[in-house]
Amino acid sequence: MNRVVIIGLGLIGGSLAIDLRRLYPKVLLQGMDQNPDHLEQAQDLGLVDSEATEKDLSKADLVVLAIPVHATAQILGGILDQVGDQTLVADMGSTKAVICSAVKTHPKRRNYLAMHPIAGTEYSGPKAAITGLFEGKTNIICEVEKTSLTLQEKGQELCRELGMRIRYMDPEAHDKHLAYVSHLSHVSSFMLGKTVMDIEQNERDIFDLAGSGFESTVRLAKSSPNMWAPIFSVNRDHLLDSLNAYIENLEAFKALLERDDEPAMHQEMTAINSIKHILNGIKKN
Amino acid sequence: MNRVVIIGLGLIGGSLAIDLRRLYPKVLLQGMDQNPDHLEQAQDLGLVDSEATEKDLSKADLVVLAIPVHATAQILGGILDQVGDQTLVADMGSTKAVICSAVKTHPKRRNYLAMHPIAGTEYSGPKAAITGLFEGKTNIICEVEKTSLTLQEKGQELCRELGMRIRYMDPEAHDKHLAYVSHLSHVSSFMLGKTVMDIEQNERDIFDLAGSGFESTVRLAKSSPNMWAPIFSVNRDHLLDSLNAYIENLEAFKALLERDDEPAMHQEMTAINSIKHILNGIKKN
Repeated sequence: MNRVVIIGLGLIGGSLAIDLRRLYPKVLLQGMDQNPDHLEQAQDLGLVDSEATEKDLSKADLVVLAIPVHATAQILGGILDQVGDQTLVADMGSTKAVICSAVKTHPKRRNYLAMHPIAGTEYSGPKAAITGLFEGKTNIICEVEKTSLTLQEKGQELCRELGMRIRYMDPEAHDKHLAYVSHLSHVSSFMLGKTVMDIEQNERDIFDLAGSGFESTVRLAKSSPNMWAPIFSVNRDHLLDSLNAYIENLEAFKALLERDDEPAMHQEMTAINSIKHILNGIKKN
Repeated sequence: MNRVVIIGLGLIGGSLAIDLRRLYPKVLLQGMDQNPDHLEQAQDLGLVDSEATEKDLSKADLVVLAIPVHATAQILGGILDQVGDQTLVADMGSTKAVICSAVKTHPKRRNYLAMHPIAGTEYSGPKAAITGLFEGKTNIICEVEKTSLTLQEKGQELCRELGMRIRYMDPEAHDKHLAYVSHLSHVSSFMLGKTVMDIEQNERDIFDLAGSGFESTVRLAKSSPNMWAPIFSVNRDHLLDSLNAYIENLEAFKALLERDDEPAMHQEMTAINSIKHILNGIKKN
């Protein structure tokens, strides 16, 4: 890995840059970012060596897109137009169907590997970049068969070096499952934050009363709207299904509460407690 | 502090026992628990020295109730009947109005101090007890004026020794605010857990796809139904208000999603992002 271009120098792109510098001390890391402040910060922080120009794309061993999903879908074809035959182009987006579909007939489709590393924090921007963000996490790769064998192997090697476990899925299944295990959590957290801020708006110090439970549940309400509004929009159908199911469950629980059916609430919560085992599984990952 | 009786030897009662042992190495710590296994575990773990009998209540300097809120409301009067004139009786329950109301005309009302330490984890039982659980946390004291001055001071001293900051509130305001900043988070988390388990029930390994964001948002779904079903029931009216507001906000966001109004979603999320500052406030506590 001699030359890498990272498009989007936020939390994900910046953290990848840190790891690549560690793995390949001699690599030339070049970056692009629509936001000139982010590009400057990323250079000041030493995340990238210089700004990449279009010409650099053709010489790169690896081009990574770490930008909002709708932007990836828009520019991925144009990026593929410019890269060399041996360049691996990978994206890190949280939805996969729209992006894969955008390049499905592209003559250089075999240069592209659709990835989604399940890694992140609620912070954003180059300053949020941290070392080892991907270590021990899962990377979902979609439509692997559409990528050339050599470039598949290059992508797999990169995952190994970053300490990631690979799972292969098709884009539709990916988007459906992620709506439930990730995108819905973000909506529920944002709306919980809104509900509490609305009622407590005139008594800010009331938040003294909130404990670590509240903090944990609304943590995702700190997430970047620039990243998440496009995810919600792009994965609208699956997210609507999950949101409808969630609201139905809340309404059903509300009905138990309205008729003060404590045994039924107890029974319901006891069944849900089994999520402990599932979460223990996540922790081990 | 020579003799203490702790009624309820779970996470809260057990953690208090650990701290009291540290603060008063010579204290006789006695316990009661409806669950004989918990009583035995608490003794095996050294949380308490022995089982308390009714006679011990009259000799105790401090009696603490750390049991579900409906049980506290039921037995608090009977406990007050049996304690000595100098005994401070305090409860640790997450709702206050029903408990305060249950003893408002009790002849020994002045022996009782209504407390709610904002401290806990999602685990329960004697084995979940940890040292320093209360350190740096807020303790809400309600109707302090109804407790005798001497016993107020005893309670305040205990809070200082545990490292807790005191806030005074009336029980109704307490219950209303806690519905929003704590009880609602638990309902939202339980229902999120249910929604995801329902859809993913046949594909458990799909939880591999969940990251730390999901884990954080459903953490409270591991909480004890024995503790939380009574809280929901006792604080039903305020919780219903908060739940209705939450569902309304989810419906409003769903409407934005249905008409794919990404700018409006972005704007909404940006406004909610200001919760960052509030959460930073919590962290400092």
